[in-house]
Amino acid sequence: MYLTQGLHRAVQQHPDGIMTICGERTRTFAEVADRVARLAGGLRGLGVEPGDRVAILALNSDRYHEYLLAVPWADAVLNPANIRWSPAEIAYSLVDSGTSVLFVDDAFAPMLPALRAAVPELRAVVHCGDGPTPEHAVGHEELIAASEPVPDARRGGDQLAGIFYTGGTTGHPKGVMLSHANLAVSALGALGTGFVFRPGARFLHAAPMFHLADLAGWHGQLMLGGTHVMIPAFDPVATMRAIETHRVTESVLVPVMIQMLVDHPEVANHDLSSIRGIMYGASPIAQPVLERAMKVFPEAGFVQAYGMTELAPIATLLSPEDHLAGRLRSAGRAVPHSEIRVLDPEGVEVPRGTVGEVAVRGGHVMLGYWNNPEETAATIPDGWLRTGDGGYLDGDGYLHIVDRVKDMIVTGGENVYSAEVENALAAHPAIAACAVIGVPDHDWGERVHAVLVCHPGTTVTLEEIRTHTKSRIATYKAPRTIEIAESLPLSGAGKILKRELRKQHWPDSDRQVH
Amino acid sequence: MYLTQGLHRAVQQHPDGIMTICGERTRTFAEVADRVARLAGGLRGLGVEPGDRVAILALNSDRYHEYLLAVPWADAVLNPANIRWSPAEIAYSLVDSGTSVLFVDDAFAPMLPALRAAVPELRAVVHCGDGPTPEHAVGHEELIAASEPVPDARRGGDQLAGIFYTGGTTGHPKGVMLSHANLAVSALGALGTGFVFRPGARFLHAAPMFHLADLAGWHGQLMLGGTHVMIPAFDPVATMRAIETHRVTESVLVPVMIQMLVDHPEVANHDLSSIRGIMYGASPIAQPVLERAMKVFPEAGFVQAYGMTELAPIATLLSPEDHLAGRLRSAGRAVPHSEIRVLDPEGVEVPRGTVGEVAVRGGHVMLGYWNNPEETAATIPDGWLRTGDGGYLDGDGYLHIVDRVKDMIVTGGENVYSAEVENALAAHPAIAACAVIGVPDHDWGERVHAVLVCHPGTTVTLEEIRTHTKSRIATYKAPRTIEIAESLPLSGAGKILKRELRKQHWPDSDRQVH
Repeated sequence: MYLTQGLHRAVQQHPDGIMTICGERTRTFAEVADRVARLAGGLRGLGVEPGDRVAILALNSDRYHEYLLAVPWADAVLNPANIRWSPAEIAYSLVDSGTSVLFVDDAFAPMLPALRAAVPELRAVVHCGDGPTPEHAVGHEELIAASEPVPDARRGGDQLAGIFYTGGTTGHPKGVMLSHANLAVSALGALGTGFVFRPGARFLHAAPMFHLADLAGWHGQLMLGGTHVMIPAFDPVATMRAIETHRVTESVLVPVMIQMLVDHPEVANHDLSSIRGIMYGASPIAQPVLERAMKVFPEAGFVQAYGMTELAPIATLLSPEDHLAGRLRSAGRAVPHSEIRVLDPEGVEVPRGTVGEVAVRGGHVMLGYWNNPEETAATIPDGWLRTGDGGYLDGDGYLHIVDRVKDMIVTGGENVYSAEVENALAAHPAIAACAVIGVPDHDWGERVHAVLVCHPGTTVTLEEIRTHTKSRIATYKAPRTIEIAESLPLSGAGKILKRELRKQHWPDSDRQVH
Repeated sequence: MYLTQGLHRAVQQHPDGIMTICGERTRTFAEVADRVARLAGGLRGLGVEPGDRVAILALNSDRYHEYLLAVPWADAVLNPANIRWSPAEIAYSLVDSGTSVLFVDDAFAPMLPALRAAVPELRAVVHCGDGPTPEHAVGHEELIAASEPVPDARRGGDQLAGIFYTGGTTGHPKGVMLSHANLAVSALGALGTGFVFRPGARFLHAAPMFHLADLAGWHGQLMLGGTHVMIPAFDPVATMRAIETHRVTESVLVPVMIQMLVDHPEVANHDLSSIRGIMYGASPIAQPVLERAMKVFPEAGFVQAYGMTELAPIATLLSPEDHLAGRLRSAGRAVPHSEIRVLDPEGVEVPRGTVGEVAVRGGHVMLGYWNNPEETAATIPDGWLRTGDGGYLDGDGYLHIVDRVKDMIVTGGENVYSAEVENALAAHPAIAACAVIGVPDHDWGERVHAVLVCHPGTTVTLEEIRTHTKSRIATYKAPRTIEIAESLPLSGAGKILKRELRKQHWPDSDRQVH
């Protein structure tokens, strides 16, 4: 089990097949293998030794794909940076990981001076963009052209494959260490369900490639030897064009992307019928959005994935059949490579239907947090990884995520899981998106507060919202205050950054619960 | 990744579903889990410590299934004995592995006195049959009833899961050490192709459960949480009845079993239409047999698996589509978890189309041979496992096995791969089965000799055979002598025991080539 295995297999089986399509550039499997072998030689020439960390800060491209293969080929360690982060946050991740070489594209080249200043260990920069190569950097193409191919190290198994810094939704960024085996097991287990990534797929990278959600799609597709289509970043029109032009069959998206696609005025002008499968994560999908999506993508099976970077990343899947059966409120069931449990604070399994912390075990559980044995031990105290998510299992083993454990609102002594309130709010016809948080309250300790994004041309009142909500869930769960916003702050993974929303309400940003 | 993982997952998702059907006995997932926890407790009570080897010598049954789960649950090591072996050979494997506890059923209880005498380390015997419990043995049911459940050790990953003694087709038996990860990767990779083991399957164990071929089916089915149907051993009528009664959807068979089924006079009296998938191994299937099989199993996809115990066991698969496309002469292509190469004697990859030794790399390659570091190093000198099989890769990455490297016949200075001759012979209408071996010859060093089994009511002459063969392959490859037999000696895996055939011709049974 090593990240480059699928490349060798594909070269053996169809060397002249198309591996990557990126803008005007198209490359065969044999070409990519040759380029990767040379790029790995180039990394060696830049002084990269086995185990060294090599980062990338770039939008999606075929060169990102080559980076993902060349680094393990050279026996080095991946470190894909979160493109939504500030320079200070990215610098933190580079310093923390001890990264010595950084790939950067045109979009992020302007950040280089700040990064160089903040990361003294940074020895070399590879420019993987199409514009002029920045000063003191070597061009990706130039490096490939100037380097001799080296043999694939073919190291894998439990060896460290990459450090993946987790999104800033909670606290301080942590470097998640994933082995080759972690990544392979998660990809094989997801393939094993037969829900997604069938042979012969053309996979669209529209979600950011640095994130494990898209990377999981990348790895599954790599193992099956299919074609990767890249667009720099998600954009509804670019996505529709790529699907139509390249007859894309599968993609990994987040619900908000799906919604933007299906509600786009141009959607009827594009032939999107080639799509056979859409995997989405980060949050459940609303029934009306799913219904519209099924019309736009008539051949598509929809699969919800639940997991996290620490799980490389998949733990449960909600199958296409579950979608048709209306089980949209569930995150699905444990995949073949995973075992899940719901635990009380003492680590004891709770009865079915009882909310507790979701814990996961299996060959996909991370090696640990980089340079952070304490946090590793706290997260995996007994072989079971604590996800930090609150949820319960129903009688059929379906997992229902009710909230981040720390997102739970305690108001007047009652526990309110914000996801439950959000689900109720989402059913209101005027509401396009929403987030529910706890804010400090003189009377209630915390009160339920909703941040709402309305559909264009509509609005809502607090009175309406409370009436609507109370018709669905207990009165104490209904928002006591609301706020109308243009949009919600999203992480790179498409998760709503509730921390950002809370900041305005809590004087001490390190403590946002009462 | 641990062998019991699929059991936990299934209990969570459908505790009251049927896990095993064996004769009149039917057990749910929850029942099996409880029994396994008690059986593991019973093993502890018998003195089994972590890492101890626990063997089984039995026909297929639901208790065999419980053994396969209880041993890892108790953190012990599996050692399923080859039921086709002589008492001396079985004793050898028990002594070599240091087995302390043995499960034995009614069929093999008569072998107990000889085994006890030959295996001094054998401390306890568990009787998993339905007849009277032999002296100094404890009954399987009695042990379960008398023992408290213990928690699952849940140890896995690279830890030793079992020692699997390889069939006696070549030389001295060797104990193949497979880890939990080896077995899980092979099963997940096979599932990942989507060719076999879809969710909701009812899997028939007709091939012997001790063998990795059936065990791979067992594990894939375990991971997907489906139903296992057991018959004690393959028998055409019992197999047809089990398929019809239990609406079996999938099975692992060998071609000779498929042939016996489709040519059976009673085949038309049974409804076999529930079969969706048949995986077969050990040897390719002849086109006429496949055509008859497709009529008998109209809904079935046929998949050929190539591999060996050392590969846990799958390396390549020939897909249902490949069968329809007439690629029956190939063993298929590398599965997602595997990488294959063809090497010359120096370990260098040969060009496409050139015959060499097949080598395999991936997370499914065994830990090594038990107590045999020299043989381990010789077999995996550089990360690539040498299969001992001669073959070549075509331009599309399909593997063609031409022979066991050591089965190659050198006659008059020419190399003859016996599989090539066998393929030519199999096309003759009178020939039901055949094996080609090299026998000593005064003039040619070795000569090509064919052992033939004819269809009832037919016969052949040497002259006919030579004419038939020469119309297909080079003259020097045509058999110079033939022998008509009632049947061919088969190993437990359904492989033809060429060693047995050669014995009659070679004075020194340790050396059967010139």
